[in-house]
Amino acid sequence: MENKVKIGLIGLGTVGSGVYKTLQDFDNVEITKIAVHNKNKKRNIENFNENILTEDGYEVVNDPQIKIVAELMGGCEPAFSLIKTAILNKKHIVTANKELLAKHGEELFQLAKENNVVILYEAAIAGGIPLIMPIKTILAGNKINKIKAIVNGTTNYILTKMDVQGASYEDVLREAQDLGYAETNPTGDVEGFDAAYKITTLATIAFGKRIKFENVYREGITKIRPQDMQAANEMGYKIKLIASAELDEEGRADVRVHPMLVPYNKALAHIDYVTNAVTLTGHPVGEITLAGPGAGEFPTASSVVGDILAIISEIGLTDYILPMMRCSHSENAQMVEISETMNKYYISITSKNNLGVIGRIGNACEKNNISLSSIVQKEVVKDRSADITVITELCKEKDMQNFIKALNEDDSIIEVNSLIRVQI
Amino acid sequence: MENKVKIGLIGLGTVGSGVYKTLQDFDNVEITKIAVHNKNKKRNIENFNENILTEDGYEVVNDPQIKIVAELMGGCEPAFSLIKTAILNKKHIVTANKELLAKHGEELFQLAKENNVVILYEAAIAGGIPLIMPIKTILAGNKINKIKAIVNGTTNYILTKMDVQGASYEDVLREAQDLGYAETNPTGDVEGFDAAYKITTLATIAFGKRIKFENVYREGITKIRPQDMQAANEMGYKIKLIASAELDEEGRADVRVHPMLVPYNKALAHIDYVTNAVTLTGHPVGEITLAGPGAGEFPTASSVVGDILAIISEIGLTDYILPMMRCSHSENAQMVEISETMNKYYISITSKNNLGVIGRIGNACEKNNISLSSIVQKEVVKDRSADITVITELCKEKDMQNFIKALNEDDSIIEVNSLIRVQI
Repeated sequence: MENKVKIGLIGLGTVGSGVYKTLQDFDNVEITKIAVHNKNKKRNIENFNENILTEDGYEVVNDPQIKIVAELMGGCEPAFSLIKTAILNKKHIVTANKELLAKHGEELFQLAKENNVVILYEAAIAGGIPLIMPIKTILAGNKINKIKAIVNGTTNYILTKMDVQGASYEDVLREAQDLGYAETNPTGDVEGFDAAYKITTLATIAFGKRIKFENVYREGITKIRPQDMQAANEMGYKIKLIASAELDEEGRADVRVHPMLVPYNKALAHIDYVTNAVTLTGHPVGEITLAGPGAGEFPTASSVVGDILAIISEIGLTDYILPMMRCSHSENAQMVEISETMNKYYISITSKNNLGVIGRIGNACEKNNISLSSIVQKEVVKDRSADITVITELCKEKDMQNFIKALNEDDSIIEVNSLIRVQI
Repeated sequence: MENKVKIGLIGLGTVGSGVYKTLQDFDNVEITKIAVHNKNKKRNIENFNENILTEDGYEVVNDPQIKIVAELMGGCEPAFSLIKTAILNKKHIVTANKELLAKHGEELFQLAKENNVVILYEAAIAGGIPLIMPIKTILAGNKINKIKAIVNGTTNYILTKMDVQGASYEDVLREAQDLGYAETNPTGDVEGFDAAYKITTLATIAFGKRIKFENVYREGITKIRPQDMQAANEMGYKIKLIASAELDEEGRADVRVHPMLVPYNKALAHIDYVTNAVTLTGHPVGEITLAGPGAGEFPTASSVVGDILAIISEIGLTDYILPMMRCSHSENAQMVEISETMNKYYISITSKNNLGVIGRIGNACEKNNISLSSIVQKEVVKDRSADITVITELCKEKDMQNFIKALNEDDSIIEVNSLIRVQI
């Protein structure tokens, strides 16, 4: 009993319960205190000792017996303050809090370094998928320069359902909310904030340079239409919300979250419903894809427990836990502005069925240095308007925005319905 | 210079060259000796110092300066003897040698334990894919009970080509040999030995119980016909050579390599050409799939270098490298005999087009406790024979073999063309 490492939990919701249950099988660990919002809430855990509950998080982070604090409550405050106190008290931290890491990671990792403790966060990005630990250990010989990832289950569920059912975003969102896959206020997911938190931290560890959350370009999925899904399918693509990060040859980072047309021959095109997947490209390894459950009680617990066991395996053996410390990146990444990035685009346009519309679109392209890869016009008989679908070659985002502006100012164009980037 | 860890390589072929080139970027490592077959062979490596070459492997494993020996020559001897000597000389071992691990892993890991050194082998299974290190670290909280894997690039290349081109095994094998994807004597790959070596070691580490190579059931891909590919496609499957390992509820292991019909909705169905992929199922993580390049100079080097860096990060810090030691499994797994396993089967039968053939097949099924999931008969007009394709429900392998025997003894059955198990 003396040799058990004492753990404190902050939060006993879905993930916390999974961690509690999973750790019961390990005799080298003992959870001695858990901070919760309401001590009297009924818990669905067998043989649960309610005496270890407290409603004061500081009882956990100030407990001198506790060596590791697992923060599983989410959100910035009070999590940020509690973790800072825990670090000052020389406790190692395991967290699943992607928002906190994206917004305050720099300060936290610096503080951890000063206090000779580690912060591990495998569960914060892509739930149960082994990702952060492999990057820090077995992939340590690599220069990773590209990440393409599906890291938000809610939006991937919605997009998959829209694709399979031909249904509208609004209808599928409502269904997802009824099933508990989307929150009542879905903004954090559908506008890409959650994915942006995750790619901020993932790109930082993979590139070894700090990415700032406020520099991550972000678009959500709320404007995706069933017609776009269908057009994409006809051309051999699936529409996915992609968290993307690339380093260019000068070492500048391009980090963003937006919908993309993903070609069928890419692994990410086949990742459906709430499954997450991350494709990493680097040298010498080449391209690898890691896929699995991105959320949920037990998958997330797998990563939290993995981090806890990793710390325990080194506690007392060394003064300085080395392989896991590679998080305090003092160098900030130089960023590429979204307007300067090169992309392929899918564009859906509704035009009056005038003579010469295609010619006018072609001229606007030429004026803005845009080459077309394909253009398809389908006539809608009812109102004599025409649906035009365009795929471009690689062109600059700034030129594309000027092109769209020109289209919007053209009288024969009724509407530019969609502008979605295409993965290459 | 004093702080560089000295490394010896055994083998400087494709993988060895990749490791040599990759390690040039790291200042904490120095390769001081390399054993090769022929010192005078021209090496395609920039600024290569030929003075560190030797034709005597014992010069590497007996060198008191060398802390880590990376064995990259393959095959059992002299690799086995060299590694044993290196271990007795207290050197840590990194190896990509799947055959050696499968056949002599037990002895090697025991010897390593006695000498307080580690043997790491990420590169031996699925090349660049992070697999062994994640299982030992971030997935350590899991009980893994199921592995389905594509771990042989040559056979996956051949099967993909057969599928895409509708070509015969023999034609595609010849093409693969011309391109260097298959060896002149392809037995090790096409008969499933290579995959069996890998699943032996992978299942041992994942299940925490030692699997013996001689207990792994094995069938190759040489009997797969283009007609089987086509029939599988029509029913929503791809045929893949699957390395499979499962633990049943009593903890008995069922480990085997054979072709399988993999349903389209499984990730492995979409792994094509030389790509490898491993699907692990366990609690609490659920199902994860790790995919990437399974061979080649640089992907394999990624894993070898990752192992080397992992050892270096702990050398001198501790007397006992803990997290990576979980390989000395004293407990042998209890095995399930293949005849006792339950499977779904795809069967292709050519029969005389007699009245009552379907009835006779049905009766033979009933007699052997086999339920049919589907049966399709297509008439071949030319010789009045009929092609019959059957998919069964789950049934026992022993019953299936009796059923096949009954079919072979039936005068109205011309031939049982194929018997392939179906992944569920």
